[in-house]
Amino acid sequence: MISQLRPDESHALLREHKLGRFGCVAEGAPYVVPVHYLFDGDSVYLHSLPGRKITALRANPRACLQVDEIKDEFHWRSVLAFGSYEEITDPDERERVLCELFARLPHFTPVESAMTHVTGLPETIVFRLRIDTITGVAEKWS
Amino acid sequence: MISQLRPDESHALLREHKLGRFGCVAEGAPYVVPVHYLFDGDSVYLHSLPGRKITALRANPRACLQVDEIKDEFHWRSVLAFGSYEEITDPDERERVLCELFARLPHFTPVESAMTHVTGLPETIVFRLRIDTITGVAEKWS
Repeated sequence: MISQLRPDESHALLREHKLGRFGCVAEGAPYVVPVHYLFDGDSVYLHSLPGRKITALRANPRACLQVDEIKDEFHWRSVLAFGSYEEITDPDERERVLCELFARLPHFTPVESAMTHVTGLPETIVFRLRIDTITGVAEKWS
Repeated sequence: MISQLRPDESHALLREHKLGRFGCVAEGAPYVVPVHYLFDGDSVYLHSLPGRKITALRANPRACLQVDEIKDEFHWRSVLAFGSYEEITDPDERERVLCELFARLPHFTPVESAMTHVTGLPETIVFRLRIDTITGVAEKWS
């Protein structure tokens, strides 16, 4: 009753959602945090304040984003997208990505997201995972 | 507006929930999957079929369980419990843990969970993470 998702199903799930769990490796141990993200079909875009996650990613750029839909223990789908960390430092691209990320969050209006950018967030690190592998699994019992 | 959770708050969150995301390191890369778990205050108990996760854990026993409550992007709590993988092979302990795990799942009755055990699941691997570190973070805007 457990089956692999087709690539198009996994891509669709990543596009439909905006909340996932981000995994990286910090000093040899796994590190997992909830994140809001944006997936454009090739890369996952995220932002973060400096901290343990960013320190870990700069040392080991391999990371993953896990996104799921869980109704109960017999009905769920989970997708895992693997990629490598790339910091976005170009000011125009950074602004574009931040605006798109904030525009997807329900409590930011587009105006607020633009204002948030204009007023600063100088510490915020914007980055992508260039996705090279996506796996998806589903369990479904009638 | 982001604050650390007190240890008792982090423990309570781990006890209240039963669905989390499990992280381990597979061949140097992070690997994250949704799991149902049981936390007894010292260890997190899980079960799994053989596969990539178990292979990874036998090679690198460091793992984590991430559990969160997310209302929206401004109101959330997330706990991360780190520990080391230990397979439970003693038949009596394995039976006790499996029954307790299944009893917590809404679609198993205690009778079903006992039957599930009696009828087999011979492949299922039962394991604990002996938790040595718990961190918890909350964001709350009025």
